[in-house]
Amino acid sequence: MAQSLAGPEIERLIQLLARMPGLGPRSARRAVLHLMRKREELLAPLAEAMRVAAERIVTCTTCGNLDTQDPCTICRDPRRDRSIIVVVESVADLWALERAAAIRASYHVLGATLSPFDGIGPEDLALPRLVERATSGEVREVILALNATVEGQTTAHYITDLLSEAGVKVTRLAHGVPVGGELDYLDEGTLSAALLSRTLV
Amino acid sequence: MAQSLAGPEIERLIQLLARMPGLGPRSARRAVLHLMRKREELLAPLAEAMRVAAERIVTCTTCGNLDTQDPCTICRDPRRDRSIIVVVESVADLWALERAAAIRASYHVLGATLSPFDGIGPEDLALPRLVERATSGEVREVILALNATVEGQTTAHYITDLLSEAGVKVTRLAHGVPVGGELDYLDEGTLSAALLSRTLV
Repeated sequence: MAQSLAGPEIERLIQLLARMPGLGPRSARRAVLHLMRKREELLAPLAEAMRVAAERIVTCTTCGNLDTQDPCTICRDPRRDRSIIVVVESVADLWALERAAAIRASYHVLGATLSPFDGIGPEDLALPRLVERATSGEVREVILALNATVEGQTTAHYITDLLSEAGVKVTRLAHGVPVGGELDYLDEGTLSAALLSRTLV
Repeated sequence: MAQSLAGPEIERLIQLLARMPGLGPRSARRAVLHLMRKREELLAPLAEAMRVAAERIVTCTTCGNLDTQDPCTICRDPRRDRSIIVVVESVADLWALERAAAIRASYHVLGATLSPFDGIGPEDLALPRLVERATSGEVREVILALNATVEGQTTAHYITDLLSEAGVKVTRLAHGVPVGGELDYLDEGTLSAALLSRTLV
């Protein structure tokens, strides 16, 4: 689009929006048109909500979660089982597990997984704080909820070793057939795992 | 997602982002995670860009375009041919035509098209100002760049009648085969129009 089509302020907004996940230059332009038409109901409140978020978001010094308070909402929640720590790679994974609402435990966000190829070693992960929490006496189980990828599993092994002396139970997510999944479309590894971990009906 | 997952500021940001076109609740959450991770490089600048846009966006009193100045960037542009007015339904259509870069004329944004069924009548369109501009003496052609829908074509007829005494040439976009389009996939109306408007090679 020609630089002269609209003021530089609008051009800048399009460029910034195009850097959001799921939005390209074209959809960013469409989004800006929508925002311009709804400037009172959407654009202005969104600007303010973003300003507030940018100002207040902090990393929880306990678990590594992102929130507007430290300790984060989850670490403060008195209804959570603090004897269980669910270890995740990212805040996105934490949110995904919370959507599943299968457990009301505390979390530990590693920030990355081990990937020697990308130069990511143990020192890049939030491990000292995890060991500290796991050995505090309050914790009885650490659930490794890491991706079933090489990096995720390497990290899981590393943490299992790290916590071997801590006197806590270390578990990992079950492998198996996804709920609603069709066997025909599953890879052999998943099918083997599902067979090995078969349960009585 | 449970209300207690993150602070209310983050929940509000997700809810507002989910109201953008192309983003649902799920992609809004993903976008917020991305923004939280990039709060210095993206979230804060985006908040500021939106604030500035919300504060400065005005509707051009000449053509109805949205911009941060009035008259808008296009109406101010001395390289534009002011003897031609391209009539469009929305600013989105104006941007689409500008992307095509086929003409450097001035525009007139109607804001809507006639739709008796939805209760949209001539009084809801920016018509008086269009007549005023078309009869100012400066204009020699009005190009109706309206959607090839019932509403668009009804509006085109209405404007043609309205300008019949104005002494300006009124034209409309050509119908035909889209560039790159395959005949096999085109509707009969388009094919008939393309045949009727055939040109010498």
